[in-house]
Amino acid sequence: MLKLFEYNWQVRQDWFDWCETVSEEELLKRRTGGIGYILPTLYHIVAVEYGWICGGLQEKAIVIPPFEEVASLQQIKDFSAFCHAGLAPFVYDWNDSLEDRIMIDITDTGEEEAHKYGEVMRHVIAHEIHHVGQLSIWSRELGKKPVSANLIGRGLYDS
Amino acid sequence: MLKLFEYNWQVRQDWFDWCETVSEEELLKRRTGGIGYILPTLYHIVAVEYGWICGGLQEKAIVIPPFEEVASLQQIKDFSAFCHAGLAPFVYDWNDSLEDRIMIDITDTGEEEAHKYGEVMRHVIAHEIHHVGQLSIWSRELGKKPVSANLIGRGLYDS
Repeated sequence: MLKLFEYNWQVRQDWFDWCETVSEEELLKRRTGGIGYILPTLYHIVAVEYGWICGGLQEKAIVIPPFEEVASLQQIKDFSAFCHAGLAPFVYDWNDSLEDRIMIDITDTGEEEAHKYGEVMRHVIAHEIHHVGQLSIWSRELGKKPVSANLIGRGLYDS
Repeated sequence: MLKLFEYNWQVRQDWFDWCETVSEEELLKRRTGGIGYILPTLYHIVAVEYGWICGGLQEKAIVIPPFEEVASLQQIKDFSAFCHAGLAPFVYDWNDSLEDRIMIDITDTGEEEAHKYGEVMRHVIAHEIHHVGQLSIWSRELGKKPVSANLIGRGLYDS
């Protein structure tokens, strides 16, 4: 489980670096599909991981700022670092005994939904990879090479 | 590990169903980014999973047909089913003792590269999710709703 989170965090950092080479106008330009913009996609990835893991699984009282309050690359990077500090210890401490623990989620329509912790963790993993795939298309539309999505070759298994 | 493979296989089936609602012309139209076409992306997903797992990890002698030989939706679906039959038993039998086993890969440039089995499995998982994220953008460009990428809500944890 941990390796796929580490993969996502490394890829996310690479996308932050990629963003440094692109104008803010391009980062906030309306695009087709997904969240519809590059920077809000990165915000969304961070907020969803934080919401599910810190708010949901760890049951912490959290506040997720609206995008408008963190609407620059530096603020999204800071938001990501803040969230990471809150949730990474939980991910590093993950063990199989947590797989079938149940969390109760209140949906937007007020309904209660039960989810296993293992399901939430994998949902978060797939969520980030999916949205990063969308960024890679927009990158080519911009005429830029996207961040590599390869998991092999990132040094995740060197130690 | 298994749950993320099951997720990918279910999402892939949903994309095959989605393809049934789109003309062959659209499935083979040149697009920006990724593999550059919808149907070849699905072919690529299948071929890469089959290559790494059946050819690499299981060390079977496999033949991967070029895209031109399976260039219709039905043929890609058949190719996917054929590959799945070959590799699914290995995925279902996966256990943690396989994590650090080593496979030797010969790269396109003839070099030998060592990879842990666990690294290859996660590479394959991330690879499919990434390319599916790209399909979702092209789907919106076509004016169509993409397949849901949500892992939660697919019934993967109902049993």
